[in-house]
Amino acid sequence: MAMGRLKAPQRREQLLAVAVKLFARWGYSATTTAAIAEAAGVTEPILYRHFRGKQELYIAAVSAAARTALEIWQSMIDGIDDPAGQLRTIASRFAGHVLEQGDHYHLLHGALATSRDRRVVAVLREFFTGAEQFFEGLFARGQARRVFRQDLDARNLAWQLIYAGTGFAMIVLNLGDDGRFVVQSAVDSLVAGFEG
Amino acid sequence: MAMGRLKAPQRREQLLAVAVKLFARWGYSATTTAAIAEAAGVTEPILYRHFRGKQELYIAAVSAAARTALEIWQSMIDGIDDPAGQLRTIASRFAGHVLEQGDHYHLLHGALATSRDRRVVAVLREFFTGAEQFFEGLFARGQARRVFRQDLDARNLAWQLIYAGTGFAMIVLNLGDDGRFVVQSAVDSLVAGFEG
Repeated sequence: MAMGRLKAPQRREQLLAVAVKLFARWGYSATTTAAIAEAAGVTEPILYRHFRGKQELYIAAVSAAARTALEIWQSMIDGIDDPAGQLRTIASRFAGHVLEQGDHYHLLHGALATSRDRRVVAVLREFFTGAEQFFEGLFARGQARRVFRQDLDARNLAWQLIYAGTGFAMIVLNLGDDGRFVVQSAVDSLVAGFEG
Repeated sequence: MAMGRLKAPQRREQLLAVAVKLFARWGYSATTTAAIAEAAGVTEPILYRHFRGKQELYIAAVSAAARTALEIWQSMIDGIDDPAGQLRTIASRFAGHVLEQGDHYHLLHGALATSRDRRVVAVLREFFTGAEQFFEGLFARGQARRVFRQDLDARNLAWQLIYAGTGFAMIVLNLGDDGRFVVQSAVDSLVAGFEG
């Protein structure tokens, strides 16, 4: 098999990508290492050379989903100088981004809603701390430039966005609604409320 | 056994309450009807007299969680005449409510994040439609009385609250953060933005 010829780092990446898909689709409990190995075209012993077990694969998959989300948010605002423009860009692209990254968000939501493992919780805390820093920074830069209102706390605003974004992603992704119009008008009223 | 003496409707309620707890704690896949029957102190055949199977029990449990949440929100505003006061009351009590109703919210979030069954999705849609009607009504009454801004769409505002409330409940419940300060200041800025 061509699959058999992958080098170790590529094999690890491939197993991780397969694990993301299966965990996203079936959840932690219903996904077995046997199913992941089969979908990756390898035997279970080969899987176990790269990951000690299902829990380690799951943690690696949730970490990869978190890292990817934060990187894409950052890439959305690279090259945009104005913080209000950065916020508008993220808002306008967020629904499409969530659907494109459906597996990653399914995985993050499933981990948040159902996992009691403290290592998974630690990965999720790190993700939300990253999100806090990202949005707090955006609001703080906007306040420093006086394009956002000075009287609101940047960290607080960051958490309002994180709560709304998390709920939005959960509902749009799982119930198939198109909430774009709500996000657009929410940001319009938010940014209009800040600017000037 | 004293448990054996329950009448059919009480037995059904008891089985449902046990199912809510176990599904909330372990999720759908990892919970068996054998475990539910055992925790309820009955045999599996008795469980099957009341529910055709695990999926029917799960749907009934998610429905019960949704109904309870909507009823409690309504009870929070009963006797409060002013829509701005209604919104402030819900906001100030929401974190405590989510923690008190932890099993019900765990169940709703788990269903939303992980279930692909169309009957479960239908129950969730009904829940969010109920939430939309509840908050749209609140905002529309406030606009009719001119205590909220006239230029914002009540349905849109309802969905902003639903997204934020869903994300807030998920994060507070599962990561153990106390987000109350964020909610309080968010509502302060929201209501301040609306009133007058």
